[in-house]
Amino acid sequence: MAPPEAEALAALRETNDRFYRAFETLDLAAMDRLWLHDPHVRCIHPGWDVLVGWDDVRAAWERILQNTGWIRVSVTQSHAEVMGDVGLVGCSENITSGREGDVGVAVAQATNLFRLTPDGWRIFLHHASLAPVHVTQPFSGVLQ
Amino acid sequence: MAPPEAEALAALRETNDRFYRAFETLDLAAMDRLWLHDPHVRCIHPGWDVLVGWDDVRAAWERILQNTGWIRVSVTQSHAEVMGDVGLVGCSENITSGREGDVGVAVAQATNLFRLTPDGWRIFLHHASLAPVHVTQPFSGVLQ
Repeated sequence: MAPPEAEALAALRETNDRFYRAFETLDLAAMDRLWLHDPHVRCIHPGWDVLVGWDDVRAAWERILQNTGWIRVSVTQSHAEVMGDVGLVGCSENITSGREGDVGVAVAQATNLFRLTPDGWRIFLHHASLAPVHVTQPFSGVLQ
Repeated sequence: MAPPEAEALAALRETNDRFYRAFETLDLAAMDRLWLHDPHVRCIHPGWDVLVGWDDVRAAWERILQNTGWIRVSVTQSHAEVMGDVGLVGCSENITSGREGDVGVAVAQATNLFRLTPDGWRIFLHHASLAPVHVTQPFSGVLQ
């Protein structure tokens, strides 16, 4: 049997994955279940001012999800850490999104903080900021 | 006497203040004392990729401090929270900086994470991202 620490870490990673699945499926109800409903939760979207409190954070997610046609977020460089009942996941978000025929790519660096509750890990802070985009030549290694 | 929790919170705020004083005084030795020297520390400067590990984080601070003529960081909207031996300070950094006659202003949103060690709070994560700058008319309230 996995020790409790390894279990907590696995559950933390899974909760972080569910956050990005909720984003990809534009699922506000899933966001509701993932976040701590607390006046101190903090959310900083790329280039935005901080949003404080679940009401404001939820309202912004509602607008973002409504105004996104489709989005894929591929998570890389993921680092997860459990410190008591606080969980940290830092990761790169490799984003492709589209709306009405326009498609854009972006890379963001994310810091996600979680609290362990009787119902599992819940997000209480999401901070994302734009990072440089590296444009590559696909399959160049295969063709050489 | 203040309860231990209030003491820990006061010490956390003070360490966050010392971080910005170290930045303003371009004091790398103070940064050395403020950060956890650990391979897992994370630092994301505005628009940058994440830096992982104290060696890379320190090298970047060294370059930033060397390439800054002068900098003032006025911290506002500060929120501090102690969760066991983890401390969180979220704040707005209102930055004025200059180098060789050029002066610039910027606002960044920061998420700073600290661990409580036998030597006090030490930073293990700094995430800063640019936020909108509100240009104001100084003293307009006074003159009306």
